[in-house]
Amino acid sequence: MRLSQYFMPTLRENPKEAEIVSHRLMLRAGMVRQASAGIYSWLPLGYRVLRRIEQIVREEQDAAGWQELLMPTIQSADLWKQSGRYDDYGKEMLRIQDRHEREMLYGPTNEELITEIFRNGAKSYRDLPKGLYHIQWKFRDEVRPRFGVMRGREFLMKDAYSFDLDYDSAKRAYQRQFVAYLRTFARLGLKAIPMEADTGPIGGDLSHEFIVLAETGESEVFCDREFLDHDVLEADFNYQDDAAVQKVVDYSTSLYARTDEKHDQARFEADVPEQRRYVGRGIEVGHIFYFGTKYSEPLGALVTTPDDQTVPIHMGSYGVGVSRLVGGIIEASHDENGIIWPESVAPFHVGLVNLRIADADCTAACDKLYGQLVEAGVEVLHDDRDESAGAKFASMDLIGLPWQLVVGPRGLKNGVVELKRRGGNGEREELSPEAAIAKLVA
Amino acid sequence: MRLSQYFMPTLRENPKEAEIVSHRLMLRAGMVRQASAGIYSWLPLGYRVLRRIEQIVREEQDAAGWQELLMPTIQSADLWKQSGRYDDYGKEMLRIQDRHEREMLYGPTNEELITEIFRNGAKSYRDLPKGLYHIQWKFRDEVRPRFGVMRGREFLMKDAYSFDLDYDSAKRAYQRQFVAYLRTFARLGLKAIPMEADTGPIGGDLSHEFIVLAETGESEVFCDREFLDHDVLEADFNYQDDAAVQKVVDYSTSLYARTDEKHDQARFEADVPEQRRYVGRGIEVGHIFYFGTKYSEPLGALVTTPDDQTVPIHMGSYGVGVSRLVGGIIEASHDENGIIWPESVAPFHVGLVNLRIADADCTAACDKLYGQLVEAGVEVLHDDRDESAGAKFASMDLIGLPWQLVVGPRGLKNGVVELKRRGGNGEREELSPEAAIAKLVA
Repeated sequence: MRLSQYFMPTLRENPKEAEIVSHRLMLRAGMVRQASAGIYSWLPLGYRVLRRIEQIVREEQDAAGWQELLMPTIQSADLWKQSGRYDDYGKEMLRIQDRHEREMLYGPTNEELITEIFRNGAKSYRDLPKGLYHIQWKFRDEVRPRFGVMRGREFLMKDAYSFDLDYDSAKRAYQRQFVAYLRTFARLGLKAIPMEADTGPIGGDLSHEFIVLAETGESEVFCDREFLDHDVLEADFNYQDDAAVQKVVDYSTSLYARTDEKHDQARFEADVPEQRRYVGRGIEVGHIFYFGTKYSEPLGALVTTPDDQTVPIHMGSYGVGVSRLVGGIIEASHDENGIIWPESVAPFHVGLVNLRIADADCTAACDKLYGQLVEAGVEVLHDDRDESAGAKFASMDLIGLPWQLVVGPRGLKNGVVELKRRGGNGEREELSPEAAIAKLVA
Repeated sequence: MRLSQYFMPTLRENPKEAEIVSHRLMLRAGMVRQASAGIYSWLPLGYRVLRRIEQIVREEQDAAGWQELLMPTIQSADLWKQSGRYDDYGKEMLRIQDRHEREMLYGPTNEELITEIFRNGAKSYRDLPKGLYHIQWKFRDEVRPRFGVMRGREFLMKDAYSFDLDYDSAKRAYQRQFVAYLRTFARLGLKAIPMEADTGPIGGDLSHEFIVLAETGESEVFCDREFLDHDVLEADFNYQDDAAVQKVVDYSTSLYARTDEKHDQARFEADVPEQRRYVGRGIEVGHIFYFGTKYSEPLGALVTTPDDQTVPIHMGSYGVGVSRLVGGIIEASHDENGIIWPESVAPFHVGLVNLRIADADCTAACDKLYGQLVEAGVEVLHDDRDESAGAKFASMDLIGLPWQLVVGPRGLKNGVVELKRRGGNGEREELSPEAAIAKLVA
């Protein structure tokens, strides 16, 4: 993509309405614009990142054995009355009357609807176990939306649901999602820590929040550093191998990790040697939950067992804040000059900077490099604008692509271009255009 | 995917609420379920088709030079008041009050919001021309929603917008979209005919509807058969080549094609030789429209010209009914046994039918074939259920995958399986398992 043709309206100044760094940087980099309070339009650069994240979430859900569907945004109030949540939800639920004065709502979550769908499609134990998920926009009418996409009103969520005949089977589904979450966040370049969470009236130990470490996080976090140093990404993980799943869960839940809500200082000190005690802040990016027959009973989602009993289905739900993750990744990965994207979600792999478009040789060299990168399937944003070198460097640092390939008349005379890494130690090297291409294509 | 594990709740009977064939078949094949009037959940099989269509639409928009973004579903009423459409829209617009009693709405289209976004991001002629699009759910509160996804209330639409300095440039954008539409529908396996449409008060000739031929269509269609026999899909079409674009538009608009609304029988008879006169019915699947400064003036979307004037931007909009197309394709491509998917949008490429799962050799052969197809990247739905051969054939015909690979004990004794084409002349041949794989992978 040529930046001269790209719709990426950057801002030089920090917008004063933005209180946290991800909100500031997303506005400045031209990733999003507010449409109304807590509701955002995703401009091309931001939408590329959102789709990358969505795709990684999807791949890991598919690998774990869940099937994708799509429920609508607008729901009838009827099911929510049956489950008892229509009144519970309060003003956070966006309630709507249609032209025939039927009570509708913009779904804040989908337990009721998925239960109805499954109830009508599955009748027997032979239809279980099963897992379904969707990635869809939700609406929660927050009283004071803020922090950009971190706490918006219209937000993109992946919500998965599991359907099992009994607790043991439901627990295995829960554990597969547990591992899927660890792997998903790791693939997104994040270190996400599973923390025991409240299960409400159901009890048990099957509820975890996944928290990403970031200074600006809303929760205080206490955990064992050992987990931070642990790499969860084994190649070719097999979700069908129950023992392998159990092993990952056992390890991850053996180490102390609590938010301030459930923190126990005495146990922290007893369980974790002093030099391994980590205290910081974190952002919730996922939540998984086994809730048994909470919805299947009132909504009548029943199946017949092998011995011809009729029993309610055991269910769980598993949420990831997909749009929130865009902000979460920025909170966890930026410096004073802008965003530093992990490779897996970067909107482009490399930014090609033409330092002097008025110089015919320089522009010819850039056009050639651009053509070669496009040809090789490397996603490249080519800054071919008529701007100063300083402005171009500032833009590239702001939008945070993993690599910058800088081409200027002086270097070209010596047969070299500069290849610069964004983030890490910001390593830079001068090398021939051919060597630079070889490195970026590899 | 193994059908025994897939969530595909088929129906044996025709649901009585379904008046047209696409609605009947989508319900029966377990592609969608109604959530409330005119609002559907897309089950896994249906969602695969929807995403395929969406991706083809996207690829052709990208190739034509448009950039993808995503606007939210919920909009503030303010912009609609500025454009004057808030009152015009009537009860079809789903109006919402949020918790602070602000007037909001579920977007039925996005001219106002995209104009605001562009106004704030582009100031100069150097920022033009530009094209932006998104693929997002819309809501129109139809008084009597029916025909399944063909006339739903919540529906998925691709809407693109063009931004140009003057009429001539806007016309070139329009023509690129014209070609993109022809190519998109052709890639979807459809014959879509561009028909002149009303331009409203703006006048001119820059408004076309794209109509797919189907007996159940809502419009009567009169056109020259020559267009029906013409193949619009040249490989590697270059949208940047204005002459090539012009040539396609000129040819396509030279032939008579009108819906009943604009039909002129005398001209039809004068322009089209009798044997080439086609009269039938059709479904609107796309609409493209140049509307000049209709929104840029009231909303103040202005740019400076090279000679420092300030002028309103010339705009056009280009819509494709993405979810409607799922129904439209079925209306155009089915028989008495079910759907016949074009290859490009089929949810799976091949259905593998195990005729006798109790037979160990048969099941071993099926498992081997399934593994080989998956390994080769062929999308295969493996009917490994404990059902009769008749039920399995009926399911496969109903869901309409392009190929059926049928494996039974009797054939295997002779070293053969049966490969059957869905649609066309339904050709079938017996061949060795190896030859069948070779044919499906090719």
